[in-house]
Amino acid sequence: MSTAGRYSVVHVRRAWYVLCESADLRERPLKRSLFDVPLAVFRGAAGEPVVLVDRCAHRNVPISGGRVVHGEIECPYHGWRFDREGVCRSVPALVDDTGSAKARRVTRYHAVERQGLVWAWGDPENPPEGAEPYVIPHLADNRYGVVRYSASFDATLHATAENILDVPHTAFLHRGLFRGGDKRNVITAKLRRDARSVEADYIGEPRPSGLIGRLLAPQGGTVRHVDRFMLPSIAQVEYALGESSHVLITNLLTPVSDFVTSMFAIVSYRLPIGGKLVGRVLEPLARRIVQQDVEVLAEQTRNVKKFGGERFVSTDVDLLGAHMLRLLRHAERGETQEAGELGSVRLEV
Amino acid sequence: MSTAGRYSVVHVRRAWYVLCESADLRERPLKRSLFDVPLAVFRGAAGEPVVLVDRCAHRNVPISGGRVVHGEIECPYHGWRFDREGVCRSVPALVDDTGSAKARRVTRYHAVERQGLVWAWGDPENPPEGAEPYVIPHLADNRYGVVRYSASFDATLHATAENILDVPHTAFLHRGLFRGGDKRNVITAKLRRDARSVEADYIGEPRPSGLIGRLLAPQGGTVRHVDRFMLPSIAQVEYALGESSHVLITNLLTPVSDFVTSMFAIVSYRLPIGGKLVGRVLEPLARRIVQQDVEVLAEQTRNVKKFGGERFVSTDVDLLGAHMLRLLRHAERGETQEAGELGSVRLEV
Amino acid sequence: MSTAGRYSVVHVRRAWYVLCESADLRERPLKRSLFDVPLAVFRGAAGEPVVLVDRCAHRNVPISGGRVVHGEIECPYHGWRFDREGVCRSVPALVDDTGSAKARRVTRYHAVERQGLVWAWGDPENPPEGAEPYVIPHLADNRYGVVRYSASFDATLHATAENILDVPHTAFLHRGLFRGGDKRNVITAKLRRDARSVEADYIGEPRPSGLIGRLLAPQGGTVRHVDRFMLPSIAQVEYALGESSHVLITNLLTPVSDFVTSMFAIVSYRLPIGGKLVGRVLEPLARRIVQQDVEVLAEQTRNVKKFGGERFVSTDVDLLGAHMLRLLRHAERGETQEAGELGSVRLEV
Repeated sequence: MSTAGRYSVVHVRRAWYVLCESADLRERPLKRSLFDVPLAVFRGAAGEPVVLVDRCAHRNVPISGGRVVHGEIECPYHGWRFDREGVCRSVPALVDDTGSAKARRVTRYHAVERQGLVWAWGDPENPPEGAEPYVIPHLADNRYGVVRYSASFDATLHATAENILDVPHTAFLHRGLFRGGDKRNVITAKLRRDARSVEADYIGEPRPSGLIGRLLAPQGGTVRHVDRFMLPSIAQVEYALGESSHVLITNLLTPVSDFVTSMFAIVSYRLPIGGKLVGRVLEPLARRIVQQDVEVLAEQTRNVKKFGGERFVSTDVDLLGAHMLRLLRHAERGETQEAGELGSVRLEV
Repeated sequence: MSTAGRYSVVHVRRAWYVLCESADLRERPLKRSLFDVPLAVFRGAAGEPVVLVDRCAHRNVPISGGRVVHGEIECPYHGWRFDREGVCRSVPALVDDTGSAKARRVTRYHAVERQGLVWAWGDPENPPEGAEPYVIPHLADNRYGVVRYSASFDATLHATAENILDVPHTAFLHRGLFRGGDKRNVITAKLRRDARSVEADYIGEPRPSGLIGRLLAPQGGTVRHVDRFMLPSIAQVEYALGESSHVLITNLLTPVSDFVTSMFAIVSYRLPIGGKLVGRVLEPLARRIVQQDVEVLAEQTRNVKKFGGERFVSTDVDLLGAHMLRLLRHAERGETQEAGELGSVRLEV
Repeated sequence: MSTAGRYSVVHVRRAWYVLCESADLRERPLKRSLFDVPLAVFRGAAGEPVVLVDRCAHRNVPISGGRVVHGEIECPYHGWRFDREGVCRSVPALVDDTGSAKARRVTRYHAVERQGLVWAWGDPENPPEGAEPYVIPHLADNRYGVVRYSASFDATLHATAENILDVPHTAFLHRGLFRGGDKRNVITAKLRRDARSVEADYIGEPRPSGLIGRLLAPQGGTVRHVDRFMLPSIAQVEYALGESSHVLITNLLTPVSDFVTSMFAIVSYRLPIGGKLVGRVLEPLARRIVQQDVEVLAEQTRNVKKFGGERFVSTDVDLLGAHMLRLLRHAERGETQEAGELGSVRLEV
């Protein structure tokens, strides 16, 4: 598959994307971007999240640099104030107002807060009409611990999702941390898709070698492992070992711009012993792994741009990349695809 | 007023612009730019300012990196020397000169030195023909103190001038330093224009609240306040309080490039008491205010470029911006406009 | 000669260029560029140099970031391995390989190692067919000492070569270090060319004044001095003083990209006394001179780009620049030129 001169850039606008964690949205507005549009994120009078295009209607200064007063954001330059709908509520100094309030609007994006995350709807012109963000499983289940982390990748959303759901690279890029010991096993991955997702279900995968595997399953054994991509931008990795061990890593991706992608990861895990302790041990390891992915994806993007486009060759063990791109391109055009089995692939891991 | 995809960039070339303060032009040439053309500024044999395009005719190295010898500037690469007219006077090593002196010229800009400033005429192909730079008032008047400062803005000349002459922003961007206390008053501004200027004359303005107001007029009272724009690039702010207090801030702007503007400010002031002391107290305040303006204008420019053009909405209290832009565009085309009253506007300040 | 809007950029691809010194190519691959193409340089199983385009066939990550295993380079992302021909020898995890090995190739450049240097042939599609890199004289002669250094210039190959072979600039840019004393002499340069080179032979040149001249010829006298350019990119400076003193500076230039040129300099010298000591004294001086050239060429390139192209005026004492450009343009088109005398020029140095 040669794609010279092209990039795996897809814009699925009619969808919810995470802009920030709830805990990071306090008194000061935050500056975020979605599909390369600068956005100001702040809390309205009732604490609800508000997302406006980050450009004052007056002199185009970013309003995210201002303060929030009674749930309205105030431009730092002349003090124009905008409410949760983007309507200008105050033009300081103006006494005899003959102008049009409509002209002074800034575009607002629909926003909701769910499960500790602030989401924005990617298309300000076509409202969500009842659509809700993805519900992350197990967050309310007492038996599960939760770890959250985030990262920013200099890469397309597709390249980032492919990286997250790719098994073969772990033995090289994360050698010693994740996979990559000397003993290798042949396992089988079953691929299946439905209208909005595609997943690889690994059959007979032994506990991953390396430090993480030993922590997750000290007694060894065979794990159930599923890598799953769900539209528009969720890359999920699931490990299960019998009834007692279950780890679900939900990576919510946000298309900041064509070549910058944010990741909000929520790890929900149930382990036979020492859950909290394991979480604390795993955190620096996860951080190290993410940093390696950040670096290699930045190198990939730089090189792809340097050569004027992607020129990728894939093999059967690039399990999900092409399927994800097809799903994304379908969704970009507003189409869906049929569900079905996609066959099996053998991998040596 | 929507100006999507456009920028308030104007090129009034047939005019004098300040390149540097006299005190900064010593033995070493200075590197400046005007309308994005790199210029070398130095002193000729009689100490007179000389301005040449900063590109050696030979191998195009900037001559501003060289030394000045007997009033000629010497290229640091091969030592070619150029006189005050841009004529090449020496080609080292060349014995049998068969070439044309004309080809070796560098373009010169007309330059004069007035009132401690070095000015260049913006159009090297159409000489000034007797035109003189603006004469700054009160500099020779013993009763006046003088403070000078300069700054560089990442903004168009128009945006910079609008910022300098804008009243409403002071209560927000410079909150606490300038205006912005709780007590607000409604005042009236009369607008008038002539062929080369436009001004706002504020009637019944109380002493500005904030620290600066208290220093300028400790006894309170009503000030006379005029904000004035004069072609091609002078933004002047005048305060008078009876006979005893008079402050005139003349901001001379230089279009370094489309989105970089230099400001040379000359404050001439007469105060009832402690003039020099007040100057020393005001200087750090003025510096802080200018720094806030530098930052907000850079944010404005960055955001305007990010969104692909200005998309400004104005109200009646944007008193001078549109008038200045019209004056500038007229001047760019070599036209003038009629004088006249432009009506009054009420502001709450 | 006006060349407004143009640049002295020439691409002579069918030629050998130095990528690195042998001593710098050890276990880790090196990242180099030739004609703006990123290249990975490493050693094959037998220690031979290998040059591959620095882009993994799989996901386009630079393979130069990987390790070398048994003479094959391994991509750091998924571990694909490429041999000395660019053939992919391993796709980790892949069990049932149904793909085409041909699609997985990366382009290789022909490479040889000669006289302590690693050379690549600039045209991967047209192999060298027996062509050999330039042989640097005197390296195997016991009577000669050798000093090597390298530098990177932000300049075209032509501007770099012209700088190296230019005499007049030495009295200005390197004032005090090289030439530039008060006593000046008129000498004559004879120019001659053949199909692949052009040279200036200086007759009756006194020992260069300045420190370097005093070190090279403590007893004074008349030197034989030749400045020589040989296709595609060799700028050679030769000094001889009778039988006992001989200094040959061979500067091998590599077109990293249009405006970046690498220089690998080999100084072979035979001196009447204290050869090694002189080398040690000269090294910091040479380093200082090269640094001055690096800086002035970067200024030249920046200014040329700023003004939108070269606009050079030349005189008779720009001895070799125009001839070199003609040679390069001929070679770019695959043509050659006739040999012949090109006349004499008098210079004051």
